[in-house]
Amino acid sequence: MELFRQVPLYRFLALCNESGMERTVLDCGAGGDTPPLSLFVHYGYKTIGIEMNVEQFQKANRFAEMRGQNLNIQHGDMRSLSFSDESISFVYSYNSVFHMRKEDVKQSINEMKRVLKPNGVLFVNFLTVKDFRVGEGVDLGDNQYEQIEDNEPVIHSYYDYNEADAMFDDMKLIYKEDRVLERIYEGKKIRQGFIDYILKK
Amino acid sequence: MELFRQVPLYRFLALCNESGMERTVLDCGAGGDTPPLSLFVHYGYKTIGIEMNVEQFQKANRFAEMRGQNLNIQHGDMRSLSFSDESISFVYSYNSVFHMRKEDVKQSINEMKRVLKPNGVLFVNFLTVKDFRVGEGVDLGDNQYEQIEDNEPVIHSYYDYNEADAMFDDMKLIYKEDRVLERIYEGKKIRQGFIDYILKK
Repeated sequence: MELFRQVPLYRFLALCNESGMERTVLDCGAGGDTPPLSLFVHYGYKTIGIEMNVEQFQKANRFAEMRGQNLNIQHGDMRSLSFSDESISFVYSYNSVFHMRKEDVKQSINEMKRVLKPNGVLFVNFLTVKDFRVGEGVDLGDNQYEQIEDNEPVIHSYYDYNEADAMFDDMKLIYKEDRVLERIYEGKKIRQGFIDYILKK
Repeated sequence: MELFRQVPLYRFLALCNESGMERTVLDCGAGGDTPPLSLFVHYGYKTIGIEMNVEQFQKANRFAEMRGQNLNIQHGDMRSLSFSDESISFVYSYNSVFHMRKEDVKQSINEMKRVLKPNGVLFVNFLTVKDFRVGEGVDLGDNQYEQIEDNEPVIHSYYDYNEADAMFDDMKLIYKEDRVLERIYEGKKIRQGFIDYILKK
């Protein structure tokens, strides 16, 4: 079976499997060239994805087509999900929410919590203030910046260690991991910072 | 396919697969109830493991037997490996080396580097001084402590962010990740600290 570079999702998937709940999963920000929903399909999940960016959306669909999978990725906006309250067992958003302003992040998290079934499990991660790009670009205040990525302006919101906790006050924390990683990207050593949350509704 | 809780090894495995080298892998500290060598077997690796603790050794073998796998785990000491110089493509030690004094850790790392083929890939991780148990137990100096685990005395050595770097001066850093995680363990929230290294010889 293919390995996925979105490594923290292996822990989330294992917890989803162990929960015994119906295997339905929603990915908010599901596009890109190696969509992790494909991993969930291998474990018998009915998948739904939403993606705002048309190019990323098409990349994910090409990936799935080549494997004869249907990931069911739709064009959509995670700030306003078109799914019923408490209708999906598992929801995740990997390396995605922080491409919005913090106000929009909060709205999106509220939407994810709304569609999650009781006892359902949520994975979401954030960029942290330990990231090497903090301070770069147009300062929008409160550690939010408009930065350039692949020649396009893109928003990055960075969080303090405890800053995102308040959004999950009504959930049970299963796992929180603060990660600072160094790796070589396009020939240069970079330092990235993430916080991953796994929570139960 | 079974999921393994030793999540950082998925990243290591993907890098091993991509390297194109002969699929031989050594696990130093290979015992326990869910031996990750089993994951490597699924990807066509010839595995070797060494384990000092007889109970952990037996647990791993029972796991493998139930799956009809032969992980080739032997009783041994990673401070003195019985393998030839430059004979194995991939070597890892997960959540294991820090159960020794730092002097012994260094000797073990030197052994892992010795048996690794040129261009081979190494994964090793360490406990960090951010761990909640730093300071607990008998102080052996230099952030080394004799602590109690399952009613047995056990050594834990804790490392600063850059402290282990010097052991890998002769290798190329591919990935370094400093992780602080919070989770519920036996009903209590605990905070653990790890640094993972992936290096190329």
